[in-house]
Amino acid sequence: MTLDIPLLIDSSSHRTLTGQICDQLLAMIRHGRLRGGDVLPASRDLCLQLGVSRNTVVAAYADLNAQGYLEAFGRGGTRIALATGTRREQVHGLPPVPCLHGGNIKPPAISEAARIARRVRHTLFDPMRNRLPLDFRVGLPDSRLFPREPWAKCIRDRLSASALGMTDYVDPAGVPELRSAISHLVRTHRGVACTSEQVIVTSGVQQGLDLVCRLLLDPGVSVLMENPTYGSAREAIRSHGATLAYCRIASDGIDTDALPASGARMIYVTPSHQFPMGNTMSLARRLALLEWARNTGTYIVEDDYDSDFRYRGAPLSALASLDNDELVIYLGTFSKTLGAGLRLGYMIVPPALLPAARALKDLADHGRSWLEQVALADFINLGHYESHVRKAKTAYRARCKLLVDGLSSLVPGSEITGADGGMHLTWILPLRLATADRLRERLSELGVVVYTLRHGPAAYEDPSNDLIDRVLLLGYPCLSEAKISSALKLIETALSDCEGNENPRVDEP
Amino acid sequence: MTLDIPLLIDSSSHRTLTGQICDQLLAMIRHGRLRGGDVLPASRDLCLQLGVSRNTVVAAYADLNAQGYLEAFGRGGTRIALATGTRREQVHGLPPVPCLHGGNIKPPAISEAARIARRVRHTLFDPMRNRLPLDFRVGLPDSRLFPREPWAKCIRDRLSASALGMTDYVDPAGVPELRSAISHLVRTHRGVACTSEQVIVTSGVQQGLDLVCRLLLDPGVSVLMENPTYGSAREAIRSHGATLAYCRIASDGIDTDALPASGARMIYVTPSHQFPMGNTMSLARRLALLEWARNTGTYIVEDDYDSDFRYRGAPLSALASLDNDELVIYLGTFSKTLGAGLRLGYMIVPPALLPAARALKDLADHGRSWLEQVALADFINLGHYESHVRKAKTAYRARCKLLVDGLSSLVPGSEITGADGGMHLTWILPLRLATADRLRERLSELGVVVYTLRHGPAAYEDPSNDLIDRVLLLGYPCLSEAKISSALKLIETALSDCEGNENPRVDEP
Repeated sequence: MTLDIPLLIDSSSHRTLTGQICDQLLAMIRHGRLRGGDVLPASRDLCLQLGVSRNTVVAAYADLNAQGYLEAFGRGGTRIALATGTRREQVHGLPPVPCLHGGNIKPPAISEAARIARRVRHTLFDPMRNRLPLDFRVGLPDSRLFPREPWAKCIRDRLSASALGMTDYVDPAGVPELRSAISHLVRTHRGVACTSEQVIVTSGVQQGLDLVCRLLLDPGVSVLMENPTYGSAREAIRSHGATLAYCRIASDGIDTDALPASGARMIYVTPSHQFPMGNTMSLARRLALLEWARNTGTYIVEDDYDSDFRYRGAPLSALASLDNDELVIYLGTFSKTLGAGLRLGYMIVPPALLPAARALKDLADHGRSWLEQVALADFINLGHYESHVRKAKTAYRARCKLLVDGLSSLVPGSEITGADGGMHLTWILPLRLATADRLRERLSELGVVVYTLRHGPAAYEDPSNDLIDRVLLLGYPCLSEAKISSALKLIETALSDCEGNENPRVDEP
Repeated sequence: MTLDIPLLIDSSSHRTLTGQICDQLLAMIRHGRLRGGDVLPASRDLCLQLGVSRNTVVAAYADLNAQGYLEAFGRGGTRIALATGTRREQVHGLPPVPCLHGGNIKPPAISEAARIARRVRHTLFDPMRNRLPLDFRVGLPDSRLFPREPWAKCIRDRLSASALGMTDYVDPAGVPELRSAISHLVRTHRGVACTSEQVIVTSGVQQGLDLVCRLLLDPGVSVLMENPTYGSAREAIRSHGATLAYCRIASDGIDTDALPASGARMIYVTPSHQFPMGNTMSLARRLALLEWARNTGTYIVEDDYDSDFRYRGAPLSALASLDNDELVIYLGTFSKTLGAGLRLGYMIVPPALLPAARALKDLADHGRSWLEQVALADFINLGHYESHVRKAKTAYRARCKLLVDGLSSLVPGSEITGADGGMHLTWILPLRLATADRLRERLSELGVVVYTLRHGPAAYEDPSNDLIDRVLLLGYPCLSEAKISSALKLIETALSDCEGNENPRVDEP
């Protein structure tokens, strides 16, 4: 590729024009902006571009050629000499890069949010993904079930229509057809009556959560979370400067009797399938939570991340469906049903918060890209979405059952929660057994990846509690039934290895 | 569509099971969650789902049927009675929706950012777009030039490969192939030597700017901007709680002599094509700005929004190419060359800021969706991008020249800036003429949309200065040469109308 050479001629300078060109080209070579083999423009082009005579450019090229920085090649071409190398250190005979002002400077201040963020270790992107064949990754759908053909058709159909969607700004809250399709989905499947105006399309639940934080939090305000909870949510809330407080969970959801009498700006909950423990919040707890929120003036953020998959019992209504006080902000996603790489989620915002939420989304990124939004609207409206979810649910239900049955028979006295729906289950080991992390290590040596409260997407606040040593998280949608069976055999091996090699902890002293 | 009915059975309740089903269905009808014509599940399905006897469900349906809320239809189906209507108000005979806790509540507190954001009026999305045939929209490419075929091919090729990109999380900083292609582009076209690690793919310049704010700003810190400047940037910075200060611009860029001696955390500049005035920052100003930043410990945010189109003179090196102190954060975008609906931009981050920037992007949205990222990487690597930019540049140069020539001949003494490159020019009317806003109004009546400092994407701080009455902003890429010629005739008409109907302002008292 011929380079655009970004040269500036300073007509007020005392340096000659040829000298200015030489200086700047040399500086670019020194800084690695021009590298061995880069082709320079022909002198007749460069002189027109710079508005100088051709002789000026020819003289500059000749000068640098004589010094060994340029060389001729091909039929009259000029390029950076290959001998200068492609890295600064390889430029022989060049002085070290001069720092414009000499010496190092102390870097200027950064924000408190940046200081918090750079310590964050939770990320859902795993650069080593699929390195081990049997990975019980939590919360990912099976890529082999991705509805490739109907999805590709929806994309292709929109690609061949007007290019205006690609070239113009979109509504920052999302394209109207998708917002309408989403409001219909949440009404029919989650019992949430909302207008399409209340729907804001986001880049996954994560952006919805970030927008909620921007909408509600100021540095120092207090936010309540379940304990244990979702690591990425905790880090996002913390990066907005909030002070976190935790509330324990019972088998029927967050312990509403233990909520503080006042002081919190918002509470983050996962009522359908508590993350990571998998419990479902009971109706009584839901009503109590709503009443508490009303009495204390607290917004509730409902993260409904994987409720599309329900294997047993009635479909669950969302907490938002019971909210008459406009206190619940609902977060949903297509990451679990279709795929996390689509980055398509949504939030449902009470009307009073809508103008601010919409403006914050606009300021954050001017809205999401157009193509996949309209393709998803078509995909839903044509019925492909419901039929895909039905198909995936059947497959995941079978995988879940296989895993539950296998684990139950492996360790009598172990407990399994969260298997009524969702995309992972929680396996609670009895105390007498090896710790969850020891089992995790041994399994990793055998090619099986499982997750614990210390290592995985969950966050847990009370390491003195023995729960942290007993909980294993296993996501099953990504693994075929055959792989789950293989993994179960290896789990059996690992268990007996651990039992043989460790001083087992005992239940009673 | 048959509904999932999200019902909860509370086995500890004193209410009968049939009564519980009735209560919940009625509540859903009252709240509009069930609407006339919605089809209920068959009683044999619902009883399995709820784990109750079939008689319980049949009794509940019969009860509601007798009350007129349900009706039979087709062959044994049950649906919500059409007479209940689809809106709450249409449900005759129903009492008003009971508020769970009676009466209204005072809404809880929202954030300072939300209070600022809901006052924002700047948005680039125009729901009335294309309502007038001759709209000189600023900063939008021509949708008819969109490289539809090669772009569609790049998308299709990736769609037919593995679905893993769609289902798994992407690198929050962007897919490696795109970051590598971008680092090559900025090196060859903008003189910026960076590694692909330093590139973070963003949702347009707007998200880059938002991430910069999160990276650098705390509430109350001071930020410098050019005056006039870009409205969306100003609102984004303001929403992060920063205090804004403004610096005047000269014909060769920001007036570096007028910069304060200390106190700013960052400065936002547009060196290639000042927004909105269009001036190019001279080399002397650039070096002075860098020296000032170093001496005062200030980060520079370089918004290089439309430098890909350069019609006259040498390609401009970016300010970032002169930065030896890691103080410049560079923001680039594909919104101008390809389209704003793609929401694809990037930031180039000094190494010291990289861990925090990457983490903040992860917390903000877990990265951008996969498909268009990899398609763009292919599009660049196959040479389509450069050939498209070359083609668009030729077309835009001709449109720009036509507009410059036309405007120059219409009003002797008017001044045009910013026509050496970019996607809009600035037309400065002489004082004796009608104000820019008066001309804008008259043109709007004639079907021509132009923009001023009061109405459009720019923001201006000093309304006492007469510049605000004299500046018109005209974007030309969206208009064909024929349309520009038509618009010029209408501009001539509007000018003579304004001259005839107004008390003209005079140059001297």
